[in-house]
Order: sequence, then C-alpha cells, then structure tokens
Amino acid sequence: MSNKQQLLSFLMNAEEPISGEHLSEQLGVSRTMIWKYIKSLKEDGHEVEAIKKKGYVLKQLSSQLSVETVSPYLETTHFARALYYLESCPSTQFVANELLVKGKGMHGLVVVSEEQTAGKGRLNRQWVSSKGKGLWTTWIVKPDLLPHEAPPITLVVALALAKAIHSTTGIQVDIKWPNDLLIDGKKVGGILTELQATPDKIEAILLGIGINVLQAEEELNQDLTKRATSLAIECDTPVDRTKLLAAMANELEQAITTFETQGFRRFQVEWERHSTMIGKKVTATTVRETIQGIALGLNEHGALLVQTGDGVRTLFSGDVTLSGKLDTFS
Amino acid sequence: MSNKQQLLSFLMNAEEPISGEHLSEQLGVSRTMIWKYIKSLKEDGHEVEAIKKKGYVLKQLSSQLSVETVSPYLETTHFARALYYLESCPSTQFVANELLVKGKGMHGLVVVSEEQTAGKGRLNRQWVSSKGKGLWTTWIVKPDLLPHEAPPITLVVALALAKAIHSTTGIQVDIKWPNDLLIDGKKVGGILTELQATPDKIEAILLGIGINVLQAEEELNQDLTKRATSLAIECDTPVDRTKLLAAMANELEQAITTFETQGFRRFQVEWERHSTMIGKKVTATTVRETIQGIALGLNEHGALLVQTGDGVRTLFSGDVTLSGKLDTFS
Repeated sequence: MSNKQQLLSFLMNAEEPISGEHLSEQLGVSRTMIWKYIKSLKEDGHEVEAIKKKGYVLKQLSSQLSVETVSPYLETTHFARALYYLESCPSTQFVANELLVKGKGMHGLVVVSEEQTAGKGRLNRQWVSSKGKGLWTTWIVKPDLLPHEAPPITLVVALALAKAIHSTTGIQVDIKWPNDLLIDGKKVGGILTELQATPDKIEAILLGIGINVLQAEEELNQDLTKRATSLAIECDTPVDRTKLLAAMANELEQAITTFETQGFRRFQVEWERHSTMIGKKVTATTVRETIQGIALGLNEHGALLVQTGDGVRTLFSGDVTLSGKLDTFS
Repeated sequence: MSNKQQLLSFLMNAEEPISGEHLSEQLGVSRTMIWKYIKSLKEDGHEVEAIKKKGYVLKQLSSQLSVETVSPYLETTHFARALYYLESCPSTQFVANELLVKGKGMHGLVVVSEEQTAGKGRLNRQWVSSKGKGLWTTWIVKPDLLPHEAPPITLVVALALAKAIHSTTGIQVDIKWPNDLLIDGKKVGGILTELQATPDKIEAILLGIGINVLQAEEELNQDLTKRATSLAIECDTPVDRTKLLAAMANELEQAITTFETQGFRRFQVEWERHSTMIGKKVTATTVRETIQGIALGLNEHGALLVQTGDGVRTLFSGDVTLSGKLDTFS
C-alpha cells in the first residue's frame, strides 16, 4: 500500500480527528508530506476537513472508484490491486484487450468504467451501462488452468458474485445458467467470459462483469419485454459501490483460487442451490437449436444436462427459460 | 480482383507480348490507366518490359509476396484474398491480434512478414524467422464452430500444410503431434494456434504458421541439439514462396471448411497415416508431467491416447518423442 493509501485507510478507520503529527509518526514521513497527501486526496474527490488543534477528519469518501478507496477493503493478493479507472469507454472488454496486446494486462487487474458506450453481453447483445449507475468492469485473469479446464469458470464467477452481493447488501441472488444474476426473477447482473488460449496455456481470461447498482425503476424498465432490477431498488439501505467492488475482488480471488486447485466439483452443490432451474421443465435455445426437457443439473465441466424425450442432452451454452414463461432476458 | 491484379494475371498467363490496346479493351479502361497500372506493378518489384510495336512482357515476378502475385494461384473465397505484408514485425501473431482489436481482422486474412524479431513457438519458445528465408504467417480464421469443437483444428491445419508442401515441391511431410511438420525427422515447420472465444462463439482463431523455405544447411543447424531443415535443402528444384503461400491458402480453406461440416473424424485416418508415432513407444511431456507408453492414436477431439502401465492416458497437448531418442525439437 502506498503512503497515500495508508493515510486514507487511517482516516477511514478513525473515530475522531487524527493530528498531522500523529500521521507523520505513523507513516514515517514529514508533516509537509502529510499535507501533500491530504491535498492529493482532496483532488481525488475525498472530502477531508482540517479541524483546528485536533486534526484531520474524513467527511465523505470520493464516490470515484480508485485503488485508494477500494484497497482498504481488499483481502486479496492480486484482484483489484491494479485498477484502471475510466470515465467512459466503448466497453471494458475492449480496454482490457488493448492492455493485453500492449503487455500491460497483469493478473487481477480490473478495468472499471463509469459508462460504456458500446457495452456487450453474450452473443453480441447490447448491454446498457448508464453513467455512474453500475459497476461495469472487466477483470483480467491468468489462472493456473489448462484451456480445456476453463469453461466452468463462468459458473464459479457467478457464485462468487452472488456471495459478494449478499455480503454487501444482504440480498439473496439467484443464478440463471450460464451467466445471469437474478433477484426474484429480475436480472441484476451478467457475466461475459472471453478466453484467449493456445492449446497448452491460457493466455488470459477476460471476465466482463456488469452489475446494476443505482438505477431507479423507471430507468431500467422502459422496454417492458425485459425485466431488470438494480441493487438500489431491492435494498433498503444505500449501496456503496466501493465496498461492493472490493467484495467482488475478495470473492473472485478466493473462488478462482479454489477452482484452480479443486476444480468445479467443489462448487457443484452450492451452485445448484443458487439455481432456480434444476428439476424444472425448461426450454433451451442454443446457437444451433431449441430443445425442451427437464434441467437435471450440471456435469463436472459445468455443462447443463437436460432430460429430453430423446435422452439426456449436454448444453455448453445457451438461453434457458422455465417452460411456459416468456423469455424475459436478452 | 482489382484491375491491376487482373492485368498482372493476363501478363503471367500470356505466351507472347500483349499490346496496351488489347489490355485496355480487356479491362475496359483507358490506355493511360494501363500505363499507370504497369508503372505501379514495376514499383511493386515486377520486371515488366515494353517491347516496341508488340506490347508488354512480364520478365520476372516480384519476389515480394502480395495479393497481386498470390491471387492468380488462389482457388479460395476468403483465404489470402486479404494479405497484410510486412518487411519486419515482432511477430505475425502480434500484428494479427492488433488487427482484430481494431476490428480489421476479417476471416481468411493472412499476415505475412519477411522477418519476425520476436517470433514465438509453442510455450513461448523462440522461433527463428530469418529475413526472406521462410513463410512467417498468421491466418485469421473465424470458423463456424462452437468453442469446444475447436481443439483439433491444429491437426487439420498440419494435414493441410503437408498437402500444400507436397503439391508444391513433391516432398513427403510427416506430422509430429500436435503441431510440427517434419521431413525425415527434421523440423521444417510449425503451427501455433491461438483461440479467442466466449462460451457461445469463437471470436477468432489465429493460426501462426512458420515454414522454413530458403535457408541453407549452415544457417539452420548452428545449434546441434536441434535438427531442422528447409524446403530448399530437401528439394532439387527452386521453391517458389508465392506458389507455396497460395497452395497453403487453398488447402487451408478446403480443410477448414470440411472440418466445420464433418468434424475431425473425417481426417483421423489420413492424419494417422502422416504420423510417424502411432503404434510406437513414446515419451510425452506435458505442462504438468512426463509419461511413457505406446501412442495408440487420436480420439475424436484430436487428443493423443497413450497406453501406459496405469491405463490409457489422454493428452491434450505436450511434447512427444519416440522413446530412446533425444528430444530434438523445441
């Protein structure tokens, strides 16, 4: 942690004003340096007040996501330790890809943008990412996995996100195979996994993760054929994007590390508990066909097993809805 | 085909001088335009002579690889119809990746560089790509395949390359699983396959293909622990890089189209005929371990089956050598 980050961390945890002298001792730097760090924190958008004869107080954290604001909540070694923040970009996947091409895409780096002007979901579908209202992110992951072991990672990530949202807001999140996060049947987030690999080695996985956080009802559901929600709609208390981003980093790093060493089997039971689909009649549309049957569960590769009249079918990806319901997601 | 390409094609196929008037009629452009195309062809390095009162004669094709010189030999719809030629670059994979990020990497485009300053083989191993002596290429492929169907493509490509070399030079090429081309046990070429995919869709496959064409014996085998060869060393008649590149395009397009519709099974028998390893005792080193056994053959996913004391092992990638022999390849 840099001195500036440490200073912010002290201020965040303090219950009363901290004197410049005390900070100077704690960090082992001059009073002048402390004054410079405080100035720099203010420039980042933090409200720091200097109370005469008492010291500094943090009145309000910057709402801008940054390494400084996120790191006090991190329990990770790599995830979100590098944070690439943008006001706007075409899509965070695009930016992450550019960083990789330039050789700057280290493991655990997260790209966060306040807005995406060309955000994409699965199958190139549009993903609305309105300014400042969500967490629009791409995480660069270079896991210790062979390429053929990678596919279930989307499901592992979905579980980690459900946990991160639950620990931050108390909300129970369901998972819709393979890559959607739902609250009471309404979409609150999604995952777009992009693999870059040679036959021997995963070069990188780009985890595109979008979470609706602060949108109001009327912003989300102008198109009545889709049902979406945000954490703010579902939660009584205000949702802190900074804490949520840190919780995502913590859960992602832990889950992916476990997946590397123990594989998907370790997640199977927990995953099925978060799914609303297992044991029910479903309609599944893949890139090639539409089938109907009973969703039996997942195999060890994370593929969905569907019992049809012609036997058990194995789906690697697709859109699955409970039969008889409208397909309300895109 | 552009007018300029068509003009070059006429000159290449002509058995006697062609008059400017005739060319002007054939192409439906003015005599002035014909003169401009001829000038431009000369600038590309083609030797075109104007014989008084008779017309133009192509004395010598440019040795530079270009859409103009390659296209008369093409039987393809997409492959090598776009050709991105460079004097030098770090690696053609890198350039192809940049084209993809910029949205300019169309299906079938080939990047060809006279030299690679940081060419790479499997597992980041150095690949020497000396100036003007080989075909150092990356082919951008956007196949009609689901991501889990992609892995055998390296083997399909190896077969296509063996055919292209055979049809151009008459040389019999063997395949060393998974990605090397050999002549009498000496390495003449290699393939580096890079997949970019989401769970639903292959965004692109970058086929890095390097072939040693014009090197002399002493250029290749300074390091005695490696045995390599070039087509020029093995072939009595001069090897034309332009024709070889076109043959590669033709065989690759045909093979990949067949693979899309019929899968790897269609190639299995032919592949095993080109392999020197099947039925023999081998030592296989993967990223994780070293095993010994008998190479039984391939499964339908292109994985190598090895009979060991502990049962049949399935290898997705690795270095395989005949037991008792030095590992002569890197």
